[in-house]
Amino acid sequence: MTGFQIINKESSGFARRGRIDTIHGSVETPCFMPVGTKATVKGLTPKQLVDETQAQIVLANTYHLFLRPGHELIKKLGGVHKFMGWSGPMLTDSGGFQVFSLSSMRRIEEGGVTFRSPIDGSSHHLSPESSIEIQEALGADIIMAFDECTPHPATYKEARDSLELTARWAQRSKAARKREDNLLFGIIQGSTYPELRGLSLEKTVEVGFDGYALGGLSVGEGQAAMYDVVEEFGPQMPEFNPRYLMGVGTPEDLLVAVAAGLDMFDCVMPTRNARNGMYFTHRGPLTIKQARFREDPEPIDDQCDCYTCRNFSRAYLRHLFISKEILSSVLATIHNLNFYNRLMAGIRLALEANRFQQFKNNFLADYKA
Amino acid sequence: MTGFQIINKESSGFARRGRIDTIHGSVETPCFMPVGTKATVKGLTPKQLVDETQAQIVLANTYHLFLRPGHELIKKLGGVHKFMGWSGPMLTDSGGFQVFSLSSMRRIEEGGVTFRSPIDGSSHHLSPESSIEIQEALGADIIMAFDECTPHPATYKEARDSLELTARWAQRSKAARKREDNLLFGIIQGSTYPELRGLSLEKTVEVGFDGYALGGLSVGEGQAAMYDVVEEFGPQMPEFNPRYLMGVGTPEDLLVAVAAGLDMFDCVMPTRNARNGMYFTHRGPLTIKQARFREDPEPIDDQCDCYTCRNFSRAYLRHLFISKEILSSVLATIHNLNFYNRLMAGIRLALEANRFQQFKNNFLADYKA
Repeated sequence: MTGFQIINKESSGFARRGRIDTIHGSVETPCFMPVGTKATVKGLTPKQLVDETQAQIVLANTYHLFLRPGHELIKKLGGVHKFMGWSGPMLTDSGGFQVFSLSSMRRIEEGGVTFRSPIDGSSHHLSPESSIEIQEALGADIIMAFDECTPHPATYKEARDSLELTARWAQRSKAARKREDNLLFGIIQGSTYPELRGLSLEKTVEVGFDGYALGGLSVGEGQAAMYDVVEEFGPQMPEFNPRYLMGVGTPEDLLVAVAAGLDMFDCVMPTRNARNGMYFTHRGPLTIKQARFREDPEPIDDQCDCYTCRNFSRAYLRHLFISKEILSSVLATIHNLNFYNRLMAGIRLALEANRFQQFKNNFLADYKA
Repeated sequence: MTGFQIINKESSGFARRGRIDTIHGSVETPCFMPVGTKATVKGLTPKQLVDETQAQIVLANTYHLFLRPGHELIKKLGGVHKFMGWSGPMLTDSGGFQVFSLSSMRRIEEGGVTFRSPIDGSSHHLSPESSIEIQEALGADIIMAFDECTPHPATYKEARDSLELTARWAQRSKAARKREDNLLFGIIQGSTYPELRGLSLEKTVEVGFDGYALGGLSVGEGQAAMYDVVEEFGPQMPEFNPRYLMGVGTPEDLLVAVAAGLDMFDCVMPTRNARNGMYFTHRGPLTIKQARFREDPEPIDDQCDCYTCRNFSRAYLRHLFISKEILSSVLATIHNLNFYNRLMAGIRLALEANRFQQFKNNFLADYKA
């Protein structure tokens, strides 16, 4: 059975402890989804993802896989799970965000978006219908409606036109769905205009989805504006469906969003920053290239139990980073994903014990961004 | 106890099955040593090295670690084993080969070699005494005498002068040794001149080492010339000491060298070629970028039981390589090192059963270089 259940709800506030069931297993929420853009979480084997980072679910990018190696190929090879050797739940985005952030020469029309591939300059078209077809060919457990990711800044009129296009595309995305073994989520836009966020929420719920996402955030609007949207509209999203905050964020962002009733998160930060030598710790981020770590025999984070912290000193990790060794990216990715997934596990335990606010306050008291 | 014992010897021929004991454990021979140049076998965690590739011993490069992060730092942090999280046996080379192959502005004198660091242009000096001091600071289980790696081609006089310098340096290397918990190996030079190889062997044995290596091969002399040296001088090396063929080679090279009585091998080929998308298989090398693998659902090698072959198709591995994903290097390195280590394990089993010649012939019948 696929679906969502709420296991416990904070007695005061909006945070909730839930579970999403898919045919590839369950996801305990609140959860973080590591980003596996091109059907690989950069640097880690699926075995490491499970054994060393406690990942429950992986996100892959429709846009990238559509362009290379192509969804027909992945379908022919048994779907994206089998292709990448990941047997747990997966989510694919719709490609909407990447079309807007990565492609040149894009042309947006009612029908869909025409754009050029950054790989070879070839011309491609994505529409609500083709996005759903591609995602169902890939075979993820959770798929996303095709949206226009409203750029920031946008005028009120631009944001309104954009959310209305997204609402029409939401209807078409839902109609295009053919499989019954996945969950289809709608995406709420509306930029930073509360009235438009409300309107987009209303229109998206009207279409009716298995889950709902806040999109178009973390695109330059700043933390305060993002928190305003999350805190106002998180609690207004349908209570009995999963709530997904797309592309966010820092550990603090996740705590704020969980408090606002959000359940699911994805972000490239733990993986991308890992490759740049930035480690998350319970005291805040640590930049390993700094000279002060040259002879440091201590682990990255003395409260961390990950493979990297159990086995390697800051001095060694600095050596690997400065020497541009592949293992630097691998060990930092293990640590950062484990940090994120442990944070979410801590949040879940706290929610079960009705002490989430205390957990959040304790975490933030130590954490210096 | 450190030392070497021969467990079984082929009834005809020179191949032998042995064991090297070190304070960090035993190495069953014949063995292959993955190259961990900068205190990391590129892309793999020590856990993957053990669990997924069956590595017994790792080689690290004195030259690289001397330049960065420095042997004093590594010593301060507890030695190279602790530094890189590898608890098994380790070998360090003397730095001689890298000084000649990687450094510019080198000046060779009786005392040692002055050279410039390729990292920052700074000037450094290596001598038999400092090489041994550095290696003992790193703390490897097997260390190498400092030699001059005779370039190819070399005139008879150049090769003779060079091997005599190496012989004098061998004496000084031995005298410089301070620790008693490691094994010190001497290196035989002499280019491709049989008379000079014989002379170098004689002079090196005269100094007296715990093991002996054939150096200065695989430097451009060609396979036939290399085989001539290995087949003539392998059997002449002291019988009751480990025999190490440095920097060699292909699977065929290893079989030929084992037949000539060699016990130990190292080569960057399985690891470097992995990063270039070349996989070893029992039928010969496979270049994964080729278009014919685009939709291929089969594993790299249908006779391989490694993590990569158990979980991923050629189509996926091609996708990773073409997409320049880190995981391409990781999965190919796992496969290639497992291939090399399985080959050596097969050789050892065959030697125990007195059927090495048959094993070698069977392997080479399938393998197309």
